[in-house]
Formats: sequence, structure tokens, C-alpha cells
Amino acid sequence: MMPTIDLNADLGEGYGPWAMGDDAAMFGLISSASVACGGHAGDAETMFASLNLAQQHGVTVGAHPGYADKAGFGRRVIPMTAGEIGRMVAGQMGALLAIAALTGRRVRYIKPHGALANLAAVDADVAEAILAATRAVDPDLAVLAISGTMLEQRAATRGFAVYSEIFADRGYLPNGQLVPRQHQGAMIHDPETALSRLLRFMDSGRMAVVDGPPIALRAQSICVHGDNPQAVGMARRIREGLAAQGVTIRCFVG
Amino acid sequence: MMPTIDLNADLGEGYGPWAMGDDAAMFGLISSASVACGGHAGDAETMFASLNLAQQHGVTVGAHPGYADKAGFGRRVIPMTAGEIGRMVAGQMGALLAIAALTGRRVRYIKPHGALANLAAVDADVAEAILAATRAVDPDLAVLAISGTMLEQRAATRGFAVYSEIFADRGYLPNGQLVPRQHQGAMIHDPETALSRLLRFMDSGRMAVVDGPPIALRAQSICVHGDNPQAVGMARRIREGLAAQGVTIRCFVG
Amino acid sequence: MMPTIDLNADLGEGYGPWAMGDDAAMFGLISSASVACGGHAGDAETMFASLNLAQQHGVTVGAHPGYADKAGFGRRVIPMTAGEIGRMVAGQMGALLAIAALTGRRVRYIKPHGALANLAAVDADVAEAILAATRAVDPDLAVLAISGTMLEQRAATRGFAVYSEIFADRGYLPNGQLVPRQHQGAMIHDPETALSRLLRFMDSGRMAVVDGPPIALRAQSICVHGDNPQAVGMARRIREGLAAQGVTIRCFVG
Amino acid sequence: MMPTIDLNADLGEGYGPWAMGDDAAMFGLISSASVACGGHAGDAETMFASLNLAQQHGVTVGAHPGYADKAGFGRRVIPMTAGEIGRMVAGQMGALLAIAALTGRRVRYIKPHGALANLAAVDADVAEAILAATRAVDPDLAVLAISGTMLEQRAATRGFAVYSEIFADRGYLPNGQLVPRQHQGAMIHDPETALSRLLRFMDSGRMAVVDGPPIALRAQSICVHGDNPQAVGMARRIREGLAAQGVTIRCFVG
Repeated sequence: MMPTIDLNADLGEGYGPWAMGDDAAMFGLISSASVACGGHAGDAETMFASLNLAQQHGVTVGAHPGYADKAGFGRRVIPMTAGEIGRMVAGQMGALLAIAALTGRRVRYIKPHGALANLAAVDADVAEAILAATRAVDPDLAVLAISGTMLEQRAATRGFAVYSEIFADRGYLPNGQLVPRQHQGAMIHDPETALSRLLRFMDSGRMAVVDGPPIALRAQSICVHGDNPQAVGMARRIREGLAAQGVTIRCFVG
Repeated sequence: MMPTIDLNADLGEGYGPWAMGDDAAMFGLISSASVACGGHAGDAETMFASLNLAQQHGVTVGAHPGYADKAGFGRRVIPMTAGEIGRMVAGQMGALLAIAALTGRRVRYIKPHGALANLAAVDADVAEAILAATRAVDPDLAVLAISGTMLEQRAATRGFAVYSEIFADRGYLPNGQLVPRQHQGAMIHDPETALSRLLRFMDSGRMAVVDGPPIALRAQSICVHGDNPQAVGMARRIREGLAAQGVTIRCFVG
Repeated sequence: MMPTIDLNADLGEGYGPWAMGDDAAMFGLISSASVACGGHAGDAETMFASLNLAQQHGVTVGAHPGYADKAGFGRRVIPMTAGEIGRMVAGQMGALLAIAALTGRRVRYIKPHGALANLAAVDADVAEAILAATRAVDPDLAVLAISGTMLEQRAATRGFAVYSEIFADRGYLPNGQLVPRQHQGAMIHDPETALSRLLRFMDSGRMAVVDGPPIALRAQSICVHGDNPQAVGMARRIREGLAAQGVTIRCFVG
Repeated sequence: MMPTIDLNADLGEGYGPWAMGDDAAMFGLISSASVACGGHAGDAETMFASLNLAQQHGVTVGAHPGYADKAGFGRRVIPMTAGEIGRMVAGQMGALLAIAALTGRRVRYIKPHGALANLAAVDADVAEAILAATRAVDPDLAVLAISGTMLEQRAATRGFAVYSEIFADRGYLPNGQLVPRQHQGAMIHDPETALSRLLRFMDSGRMAVVDGPPIALRAQSICVHGDNPQAVGMARRIREGLAAQGVTIRCFVG
């Protein structure tokens, strides 16, 4: 069995008076947090609170930029050129890094959010724009990408430290892609099912798929969701279940 | 006559489809530009365009953070704690510095905008919060403050390089403060009047006031407005008039 | 004992992906809902969902306009003229009435939110601006005001049907005003305490205060909060406790 | 020659401190104004100012709803369901009608903006959602549609009073559609060219196209742009040129 893996959640996704999930609980369960940067979610206060929680719990922080579309939570493609996307992403990362500097905790990686991540997974120009923005803002940032995507590939080509994530609660197709949200098998709601699937992956490097034999996947991080009421229970069960099998939960970067 | 002074304007104050003044013309006339950071005005595109214009014209760039209140253009006091202000300012500066990194032009100083500047002029906690944010984001940034303010004083105490500005088109009171906007003599609309007042200042270090003899003011920068149709003509006349008297227009930082 | 009272909550206060409290549960417990209009909270989707829930549960709907300040949830005073406030309130009410027209449920009253309500409680110009906006948008709307305020008084003078509310979970001062939030006794967290206090009020017309004998208050509505996890339990206990004493829960307008 | 036509411009498209074009001049030249409703542009103050200018100049007012995307000025398609579009449009129209009620000038028609108009031109569900919203908000509103579109056709089917517009400064294809913006001949910048083309249309009912003989078009309104510095000159020349040929400039609704 693989001895070590990262447990990652997207956090700091509130806005003004609104919270998204139970960040305080989630920070106690994970090893890395992808923090919203004021685009699809987040503001200076949520960034600051997230950085402080990360500092307190020893959690590694990544920047989680997304479309500047709070009404759509970054899940809608907003028509933009790759250049505009690069500037938007740079500005969001810059905001998070600056607020991080107020807390003494550094930002260590970037992971795009939602519709932007989906686009960067298949569009080379968008992937390159995000990487150029990352390089300009802080060339030491790592990239956390969905396994098998254009972003992952281009980040490697450009010399970034790249890490891949798999999803604890999403079904996989035989080609390694996620089952679309509207299809059966897209979401895994039962923590035991999610856990046993992950344990087999840790043991074999192979992930169960909806139709066919398990497939080989490469991953240094497991993404758990933090944005719903069941999230904390799912994350806790996965953390405990992995630990019980001797897996160390640790971020892919120091 | 003083041989050198900076000519500063607040630019990059558009938003989305909207422009504020004629930035392209203004960048050709000034030596430093205080660029809006997406709070009271500006977005990733306006920041990028401003940095590129600055690069092209050899203009020094400063961060110009303000209340995140586009509807009010940062001219209304939004009730916030000093801590919240510090986080807001850090995030805005971080965004500008990150987008600057995409252009190859560095941000060299900070100058708060509008109601935030007015508050930092008198409120020690707010001044300190802005300075702490500045230090965290980039300790090499200089501070451009209104002459005689709390921000100027605290910035000096905290070891920042501090520079002071006077306003080309605003009337002064005998105590060195600006004539309030709603009072007579608040605004100077005639370029010749503005110029002759500035030339006397450059010669004597003393500024005309609305009621009484000229007063001693210390300033390394003259602020001209960029946000109205007459702005370009005013800036051009001042630039030409100063140059004709042998004054070098150059930013206070390299 | 008074036979009838209204149970009111501020609902529809989510935004985009974010919810505020459990609206679906609250709509089943109350007789009137003050629905956010896209200013301090809310958007077209939350308005539409709230109107539909109101229709389904037979709950009367009011407009709940507030400062257009989602980051501050309408709890900060944004400097505006009374005229600007009137236009802002008109626009928000108009949006809600229009979306209501899509659902077949009518909006019946107005109740300002947060810092705007506090200002309308003491500032005659603001109260009049809100009333003029209400009259222009729909002269048949009633006004739900905090007992003893300028808004209540001016609404009566202007010929509106005016109703007053008391707060289930807020402490009162001997002068009839609320205990400020930062003071001891400001909030009542225990449902039994809140209920027994309300039952005495229903029986006597007198409300307990923090220091001294109960005072006479006039009220046709009890406001319960909907914006926190304990809100549903509190509302349910109050509803059941009132019903058990024979009090009919019914809105002040048909 | 046709004796009467409407001259329409999209106005009230500023936001907060930002203006778009010279509304004060444009209102003096046109017979109908399509006023932004706070979606792609506009806020309570711009709506109020526009209604007052319309009142002063006797200009008919229409609602001009668009995607709630100020950064993109409503020119980007934001992925939304037809239902979401209907609610968004209802809310925007409601806001304008309410603010109109403060001024004594009524809103008489609806004309969608930008990317929303383009979608409603070809998507039956979107066209129907906009019409259902219009009917709910005010069934007496007319519809101003681009000639030959799905919206025009459905509005007629649903029993609305429908009017069609042609563009003073846009080139036409032989099929009656506009030349796409990025193609040659898309924009007509010369007022004389625009005018002579319109005069021929008024005389013959046929419009010049980029490649081929003039085509028959039906139109009760000529749209002139208001959002650029040359707009006023173009509008003035067209107005004067039409008047000189005896054409009456008058809105299609009373």
C-alpha cells in the first residue's frame, strides 16, 4: 500500500455573511486546502480566516482561482480570451498571496476551480495562460491538476512541480474522466463506499470505474468536498480509514 | 527654483466597458501613476493596460487602493475595522503587483484613494493597518501621502520612504488642509492659475491659500486629476509650464 | 390573552450558491416572510424560490429592502442621500414585485432591513423617502415597522396601514428600545425564555425589559430570526407554545 | 417616402461614477430610449436620471434588460436556463418600472440588450421566457425586436404589439442579418453614408446590403448608438437629414 497521500479540500468559499460548509471542522481533517481567491467565492476576510486556520492546523495552502462569477460559483464558462483569463488568475493569486503575507503562512500551489479547471483541462491556451500567470506571481508554486489533463501535461512541460488529484466522491469512466454530474454514478454519497474504493486505489494504484475493470491512475492527492453538510463526515471517515490502514496523510509539498 | 518634481495622476480608474478620463493621453504627460486596484475602480484588464502604458511611457507605478465600493467610487466611508481595511488593502495591492509581474513593470509605491485616504490622514489605526499591509506585501514600497497627515507621519515612524503630494487644482486653507469641495475656492479650473501657483511654490516652497499669506508646504509630487475631460489640458499646461521654467519632471523614486 | 398575532421572519437572504438559514423549514412555521430584494442579499432566483415557498405555505410576503452591500449584509450604513435611498428602495421593491408577478403571489408590505431600518427609525428624511418609494411602487402596500420608530410614525401620518413588530429573541430596554447587540441581555438564545416572555406579552400587552418592570408595547407581529442554525428550533417552539395557549398565528394583512 | 419613423438609442448605460456616452445630448435627438435596468449597466441613479431626461424631452422609454454582467457589458453569453433568464429579466424590468413610478414617466416597451438579444433572436425558449416576464410585469408593454428574429415572431404570436428596428450604423447581409462585427462593412462610421442609406430605405422600404441589391426590410424604428464619442454627431445628422426630407421622428407607441 502507498504510504502517503494528500487530503485536499476547496475551502474559504464563503462570501461576506455567507459560509459554504464547515471550514473550521474541515481544516482539522485535511493536509492541503485550496482557498478561494475572491473570484468564484471568497473575499479578504475569508482568505485571511482560511490562512489563519491553515496556520493553526498545519495545513498547506493553495490558491484556488475561478471565474469572477459569484452568482454562478465559478461553475459557468464566462466567455473570455486566454489572455483575460491569465490576468484574472494573476490578480486572484496576487490577492491571496498578499493576504497570506499578513498571516505568516505561505501559499504553495495553484489549483483552478470549477468551469475554469474544466476548460484548462482541455484548452492548451487557457492552460498556458494560467501557468504563465503562476510563473509571474510566484515561480515556486506547484500545480495541483486533475489527473490526465492538458493543464497537468503543460505544467510538466513548463517545468512546474505538478501533482495530480483524484476525487473521493466522484465516479470515474473507463477513460479516466469523471462521470458527468447528471449521469448515474457521478456522485458517491456513502462514506464507506468512498473509503473502500480509495483503499483499493492506495493498495493497487487502480481506481474503480462505472463500467469495466479498475484503471491505473496516478495521484498524489485525494480531493474531498467541503461545501455541503455531509462533507465533514465523509472527510473524517476517509481520514480515519486511511490512517487505520497505515496511510500517512501529508501534503505533496513540504 | 526647485529643480525636480513628480507629476502624479490617479489612473486605471475605469471598470469593464467604462473608461474614466483619457488614460492614454495622461500617461504621456506624467511621471508617476497611482493605479486603481479593483476596489473603488479597476479590474484585471484596466490594471494590465495601465501597467503596459506605464512601461511604454517610462512612468513609475503606484498602487492606489480604495474602498471596495465601485458604486461610490471609493468616496464614501464604508464602516470597517482597521483590521478589515488592512486585509482589503493587502488584497488589492497583491492583485496589482501580480498583474504587474505579467508586464515586467514593478509597482513602487502606495497611495490610498478617496475616503480611505481621508481616513488614513487622521486615524492612526487605519494608517497603521495600511502600512502593515504594505510592509507584508512588499517592504520596498514607498508611501505617497498627503502632506501633513497621520499616514505621512506614521509611515516615517515605521521606516518607509515617504513622499508628499500637493494638488494642482485644489485650493488650500491657511492650516495646510484642502478647501472642502463644497466651499468656494475648492477647485481651480483655470490651467494658468494652477500653473502660476505651482511655479511660485517651486520657487519659494510656499503655496497660496484662500485667505492669507502663502504657507510653507513640503512636497515631492504634484497631483493632477485624470478623471475629467479637462484633465489632459490641465496636465499638459502644467507639464509644459514647469519645463519652460527648467523644472525636471521626474518621479520621487528611481 | 390576545387571540391573534403574526409570526414574521426575514427570508430569501441567500445569494447565488449561498444559503442563509433553512428557508424551507422556516416557511412552514411563520405567517409572514420579509423577502430580501437583491440589495443586502438575494437575487432573482432566491426571490422566485421564496415567493413559491410562500405560495405553497400560504405565507404573506413583504419586501425587505436594504443597503446594496452584500459584503456587509446591509448592516453597515453606506453614506447616501435620502433621495438615493428612495431610488434604491424603489428599484429593489420593483424587482421583487415583478418576480412575484411570475409566481401568482402578491407582495403585501414593506419592512426595511438592518442598518437601513435603524436609520429609518430615527431619520425623518429617510423614512419619508422609503414611504414615497413605497407609494410610487404600490400604494396598497402596508408598512411593518419597529414599534416606536420614526418610520412607524411617518407611515401613519402618510396614511399607510402600519403594523409594528417585536423581536422574539432580543432584549428590551425600559425605554422600549432594543438592548444593543454588544451589551449583556441583547440576545435571548433559550427558546423557553423567549416563549414565556412572549406569552406574558400576549396576555398583558407588556414586555419584559432588562432592568425594571415590564413596559407596554404595541405589536401585531413577532419577528423570529431565520439566519442561524438555531432559528428553526426557536421558531418552532414559539409557534407551538403560542398555539398551545390558543393564540392564532396569522398575518396582519389578509 | 414613409412619413414617420422612430429614432431609438440605448441610454442610461453608465454605472456609479462612470458614464457611457453623452446621454444629455442624445435625449435631445431621439424619440425613444431603451434604458439599462441595472443588469449589463445602470443603477438606480442612472435609471432615475434617464427617466427624468426622457420626461423633459418627451422621449418614450423602454426597458433594456441584459445579462447581469457589468464587466462584460452584457455582450457575453452567461450560461443560464430560460427560466433563470425570465426571472432575471423580470427583476430588471421591475426595478425600472418602479423607479419610473417615482418620476411620473411610464415605461412603454421592452428591448433586450446585447448577447441576450442575440440569443432571443434565435432561441424560442429564451424568447418565450422574456415575453412571459414582460407579460407578468406589465402586459401593456410593447416589444421592440430586431427585424426577422424569433423574438419578433413569438411576440406577435403571443399578442404583443411588436415593432422592428434597423440599425443606422451597421451593415446588412443579403439575408437581412447584420454583418458580423469582425467583418468588413460591419460598421458605418460616416454620418452621410448612414443617412443616405436610411433615406433610400424610407423612400423604398429597401435597405442596402454589402453584396447584392437592396432588400426589403420592415422597420418602425432606427437604432442609433449612444455609447461612443461620435454617437451624438451621427444621431444629429440622421435626425436633421430625415427631417429635411419631411420625415417625422416619432415613437412607435404614443
